[in-house]
Amino acid sequence: MADLTALALVCTLTASPAPSSSELMAQHILDQLKGQGADTSLVRVVDHDVKRGVLTDMGDGDEWPAIREQILAADILVLSTPIWMGHPCSVAQQVMERLDAELSETDDQGRPIMYGKVATVAVVGNEDGAHKTIADMMQGLNDVGFTLPAQGGTYWVGEAMQTVDFIDLDKVPDPVASTNAGLARNAAHLARTLRASQYPAE
Amino acid sequence: MADLTALALVCTLTASPAPSSSELMAQHILDQLKGQGADTSLVRVVDHDVKRGVLTDMGDGDEWPAIREQILAADILVLSTPIWMGHPCSVAQQVMERLDAELSETDDQGRPIMYGKVATVAVVGNEDGAHKTIADMMQGLNDVGFTLPAQGGTYWVGEAMQTVDFIDLDKVPDPVASTNAGLARNAAHLARTLRASQYPAE
Amino acid sequence: MADLTALALVCTLTASPAPSSSELMAQHILDQLKGQGADTSLVRVVDHDVKRGVLTDMGDGDEWPAIREQILAADILVLSTPIWMGHPCSVAQQVMERLDAELSETDDQGRPIMYGKVATVAVVGNEDGAHKTIADMMQGLNDVGFTLPAQGGTYWVGEAMQTVDFIDLDKVPDPVASTNAGLARNAAHLARTLRASQYPAE
Amino acid sequence: MADLTALALVCTLTASPAPSSSELMAQHILDQLKGQGADTSLVRVVDHDVKRGVLTDMGDGDEWPAIREQILAADILVLSTPIWMGHPCSVAQQVMERLDAELSETDDQGRPIMYGKVATVAVVGNEDGAHKTIADMMQGLNDVGFTLPAQGGTYWVGEAMQTVDFIDLDKVPDPVASTNAGLARNAAHLARTLRASQYPAE
Repeated sequence: MADLTALALVCTLTASPAPSSSELMAQHILDQLKGQGADTSLVRVVDHDVKRGVLTDMGDGDEWPAIREQILAADILVLSTPIWMGHPCSVAQQVMERLDAELSETDDQGRPIMYGKVATVAVVGNEDGAHKTIADMMQGLNDVGFTLPAQGGTYWVGEAMQTVDFIDLDKVPDPVASTNAGLARNAAHLARTLRASQYPAE
Repeated sequence: MADLTALALVCTLTASPAPSSSELMAQHILDQLKGQGADTSLVRVVDHDVKRGVLTDMGDGDEWPAIREQILAADILVLSTPIWMGHPCSVAQQVMERLDAELSETDDQGRPIMYGKVATVAVVGNEDGAHKTIADMMQGLNDVGFTLPAQGGTYWVGEAMQTVDFIDLDKVPDPVASTNAGLARNAAHLARTLRASQYPAE
Repeated sequence: MADLTALALVCTLTASPAPSSSELMAQHILDQLKGQGADTSLVRVVDHDVKRGVLTDMGDGDEWPAIREQILAADILVLSTPIWMGHPCSVAQQVMERLDAELSETDDQGRPIMYGKVATVAVVGNEDGAHKTIADMMQGLNDVGFTLPAQGGTYWVGEAMQTVDFIDLDKVPDPVASTNAGLARNAAHLARTLRASQYPAE
Repeated sequence: MADLTALALVCTLTASPAPSSSELMAQHILDQLKGQGADTSLVRVVDHDVKRGVLTDMGDGDEWPAIREQILAADILVLSTPIWMGHPCSVAQQVMERLDAELSETDDQGRPIMYGKVATVAVVGNEDGAHKTIADMMQGLNDVGFTLPAQGGTYWVGEAMQTVDFIDLDKVPDPVASTNAGLARNAAHLARTLRASQYPAE
């Protein structure tokens, strides 16, 4: 029986049902997390009307609050984003902006509301930009209270100045598959550990 | 008589007519550019329905093509963005994604279409993130063909972990005003120089 | 009685005994960690002859191996660095390069050798660059196997284009002191938790 | 007859005469610059005793001042660096720290001393990190007064999580060779243009 909940936020520019490399990468990680005892779900953010802004609810039909509820219900967040111009996709940055609001949100013991949750980062691109994208996302997620498990980032990019996509590959390359397996193992372990032993209140 | 054209793209999250720190910073730079002989205009990107994607025209009412025409008509681009979570605003990253399409666009001599244009970057935030935001924006703009004048970046942020906005200041701080003046002087000089002596075709 | 060991690596450009802002920040965090039950020590990296390279031991009088032994003996690492040009100091990047070797080192159960250790990042500068420096350091430390506690980064920078140093302040500003206290509380909790429940081997 | 001077600073961790990917990349660019009418030279920074610090001359046998003279004599700077942990090499960051001192240096008309010089950036690595490294280096070089020509960055990295070096390739890949040729063409044009028409003094 699953005792953990994992949510992937896929930050592709492309609406469903078009195929997406960042969704494929997220799905691969969720499969690994299932093997670690997690119930999993996946949200492609652009399929929803997420308003621009830095509040938990921007009103006016904003669909972020529903996504936020899924984050709050999850033990593990997988943020998956493509690289554009060497940077995290604008959709991933928009997620960061919405999460910025959580700096003011606390649980019933006064702790930042994301304390105890584990975040991991997955990045795909044609050719370059993964480490920087992981860095930007990890720093933002950590800042709002997520804990980052050992080797909590994974990625695939092709050779410089090439145009192959992750979805064009015949299979997940072995080092990526191995990294994803380790990431899932560590995230699940850390999430269970923190649930059993939450950070102390001030 | 003005012999140069300068366009500011303001990448705030906030729609007009609400005040915006990044618009105020852009306006200050445009004032300096007027003094250097430029006709100036300003676009607050979120006031327009710019679609997500990496094409010059995403169709379906996309208002980017009209903004793109203004970029193509300008000698100098001022990209002005706030900082969120230490990163460029999602709107600035979206502009990068739309500019990515220009990697395939050429002029009638086969040169990348932005060759000969000058770009500058302006950044505002409460407390931190300016150099990194300038770095990300300069690299993207340079990659699509803009030339960056000496000391082509400017910024204001307050002390760490504080919340004052640029629009809250009584006046533009002296070192920022001096930086903006130099930026405008250099951008105007370089734009004129490159117009008189465009990069050679291959 | 202390049941944890914390080590600060101070990455200032300046040799002892000259005062150092990044050392002062590290010392403040170590004081907090003492209050959480940790034995603490501090290494100013430039006081030692750390050779350039990406091996655990570069030979030829290399003093990194002795520092490495202290890292391996610690439960918590505090990496403290100044900002230069908006980037992590070259000394901090040199530490990253030496830690790169740990990607090939494993414990007796085949786990990456840094698994179970907790890392935090402290950054000081005159005016800007903290979030980006935290991002680069967190990504590197996480990549070699450190776990990052909730809100595991802290920093101080002054207003844009100013020149005050952290060591020039009358006292640690309240929001920085509060951040440091939370960082120490979370790091100590996470280190104890992981020691009681280490990541599983493959 | 050569009418331009180009200097490559190679920021590998490895002392001569060992082969170096970042030197090979720099040499390829210098060959292109020769074809554009430049006299070229190359400095492998680690072959010299460059002291840590942020002054033009740190004394005590510091060999940076001699390198600095070569920079001041050059029209075009090619900064070539490997990637470690996804970041610019510590040697490249050390060059940035030494260049930081130039923010206070002016020519006989009061202009920042690097005004009129053109900088380009070359990056090599096994697998990822080029765009970010270019971003960090461009921002720093621009900040101290270098002008960045259109498409002034070039790079090679292999597929994610692989270990092939640039020096292991049979030849420079076609898109890299084409990028290097364009970079050299643009840098030479811009350097000549700025020499004929230097930035105005305040």
